[in-house]
Amino acid sequence: MNNKNSEYQFSPSITLDQELVLQSGVSLKNVKLAYQTYGKLNSEKSNTILICHALTGDQFVSGKHPITGKNGWWNELVGPGKVIDTNIYFVICTNILGGCMGSSGPNQINPDTEEFYGLNFPVITIRDMVKAQKMLLDQLGVDKIFCVMGGSMGAMQALEWAHRFPHKVIAAVPIAGSYRHSAQNIAFHEVGRQAIMADPDWQQGNYLKAGTKPKRGLAVARMAAHITYLSEPALHRKFGRKLQNRMNLTYGFDADFQVESYLRHQGYNFVDRFDANSYLYITRAMDYFDLAAENDNVLSKAFKNTPVKFCLISFTTDWLFPTVESRKIVQALNANAAKVSFVEIDSDNGHDAFLLKEPEFHKTLKGFLDSTAKIFSLIKD
Amino acid sequence: MNNKNSEYQFSPSITLDQELVLQSGVSLKNVKLAYQTYGKLNSEKSNTILICHALTGDQFVSGKHPITGKNGWWNELVGPGKVIDTNIYFVICTNILGGCMGSSGPNQINPDTEEFYGLNFPVITIRDMVKAQKMLLDQLGVDKIFCVMGGSMGAMQALEWAHRFPHKVIAAVPIAGSYRHSAQNIAFHEVGRQAIMADPDWQQGNYLKAGTKPKRGLAVARMAAHITYLSEPALHRKFGRKLQNRMNLTYGFDADFQVESYLRHQGYNFVDRFDANSYLYITRAMDYFDLAAENDNVLSKAFKNTPVKFCLISFTTDWLFPTVESRKIVQALNANAAKVSFVEIDSDNGHDAFLLKEPEFHKTLKGFLDSTAKIFSLIKD
Repeated sequence: MNNKNSEYQFSPSITLDQELVLQSGVSLKNVKLAYQTYGKLNSEKSNTILICHALTGDQFVSGKHPITGKNGWWNELVGPGKVIDTNIYFVICTNILGGCMGSSGPNQINPDTEEFYGLNFPVITIRDMVKAQKMLLDQLGVDKIFCVMGGSMGAMQALEWAHRFPHKVIAAVPIAGSYRHSAQNIAFHEVGRQAIMADPDWQQGNYLKAGTKPKRGLAVARMAAHITYLSEPALHRKFGRKLQNRMNLTYGFDADFQVESYLRHQGYNFVDRFDANSYLYITRAMDYFDLAAENDNVLSKAFKNTPVKFCLISFTTDWLFPTVESRKIVQALNANAAKVSFVEIDSDNGHDAFLLKEPEFHKTLKGFLDSTAKIFSLIKD
Repeated sequence: MNNKNSEYQFSPSITLDQELVLQSGVSLKNVKLAYQTYGKLNSEKSNTILICHALTGDQFVSGKHPITGKNGWWNELVGPGKVIDTNIYFVICTNILGGCMGSSGPNQINPDTEEFYGLNFPVITIRDMVKAQKMLLDQLGVDKIFCVMGGSMGAMQALEWAHRFPHKVIAAVPIAGSYRHSAQNIAFHEVGRQAIMADPDWQQGNYLKAGTKPKRGLAVARMAAHITYLSEPALHRKFGRKLQNRMNLTYGFDADFQVESYLRHQGYNFVDRFDANSYLYITRAMDYFDLAAENDNVLSKAFKNTPVKFCLISFTTDWLFPTVESRKIVQALNANAAKVSFVEIDSDNGHDAFLLKEPEFHKTLKGFLDSTAKIFSLIKD
């Protein structure tokens, strides 16, 4: 497949055999999904764990990230002997449709025009992301997933998998997620999008062609979002009102406070590894997600007679996807007499907790995976 | 006083006789404060209520605003026969130092250079704002204030007044406020500042000279801030996931959801009435505010033996200045055996509640004012 954007050739990728008909009705040909795998698919093809990444995550779950050089976002959890034990499981994570790490998305070349897609890329949804993953797994010969899991937008994908393909999934672990994006969350996303689109270097979406980069807009979007990932207690514990490398206030607009310096760092680092248009598309997909709406506003209908075994996890100080959102899903599952366990983890790390060292969270996940694996003979009892 | 910026001549103003020595050590000459008054100063000069406005507020408390044509921000509360009864009280509100509605600030002319101040205006603090108000009241012959009150940054000023001039204030009503800005609040302000400074039309602060206006950056700053003024329940009640003048999702980046449309409206309306540099200076002043820090980190020392009668008010769903902040102030006052009453108002309107029709809040304020006025013979018993 031709691709001018050679810097993103870090992962293997597969071009889907079939056209992908999107929720909008648009058809996408030659859809490419970049992905990473960890561990080996067993001969029964029964040990696949599909990990779904969050808004700004990518397929580099474990090991070194090719751009940042840092550990993958779930390096702590995924590997030989770890909670998601790659001696047992075949772990796969795809860069989502619309992403910017090698999968078809606005920073890729439109094969029809041989130009960057930019805003000509069609608006995609969580359902579209999942549909593309399903087609990729079909092509890899994986008919049934042992477990689909993810945090935040990854949780949305896990729920969509269980909803759309209940007989192709044994277990689902939606972490720090929701069945629909709230008005407050849409509002925060809209601020991010407006910040990007306000940057003249965004060039009405054509910055790749123009050779510019809307760094400032994307950095501001990231800063605003980053606040929502942390809890007030965590911000207070980490930074409080501590000053940045100085003893006194400077009476200026430099980063006097550590929290300002930290935010600027988060914002301006992000632009090196992320595409501004991808940010627009992915936030839009999250905003559009509403499993209740597409089921007559009755969430329980989304999981009618589901055979899937669920484990829902939330965090006490997560105010972006608060526990009440997970509880509503649990209630909808209970209304179907589904197999569901639910744990609210006591943590002061806010939404970010799903990415951090949280022993209780990791213990919960291990307990659920191990017990389910025993039932399905992936682990000997 | 010469002033190229004639559009802001809506209010009377006073130029301070004395130099204003700022907390930073810088001296400001010819400081001008624009102000509005309501009601009449009595012959004993004992009936003054000083109302302090919030970040984006101004001196137009009541009546029509000269730019927006809308009612003043406390029109509901201030007027003849209202809670703050202008038949009884002499109400004064000054545009704060650093503001953009006629007081000395970055959008005014520096008398030394005859150019716009822009970023040559010195960084100011809440203490500086209060000091300037005190000098203005001295010039008006008001030696003692019956009550100082305000919400949000207005609460900070009320606390600063009680702290700095305890014998010049009979009563203080800090509403939805805090004794110091939290790390999360500093973070949100920093996002707003970065959004403004990222706008090329900001011109390194010299946009007034350059004839540009950083509209997009200021609008993004306002949008981000606006989310923090509302509660999640209020956003859910007002907007939920309702679509804007359409039946279906458009699969695009227009404002599909009502909450997006509302935010854009809030953002782009704001730029017509507010100055971007003022936004930088005022947010900075709020970030710097910390009554504990300047008292050996012991807040109670800020109110040692205070004779001031306090009434603190907070709102249940205010997550920008949550009730716990007011409680800490109450505890510090209790440690001084101060006269303090405290009411947490049940409201789903978030921080904005102090600006809205909140009958319990208004009843509380009236009760406190009336009873205090009786003690001081402003109202007959």
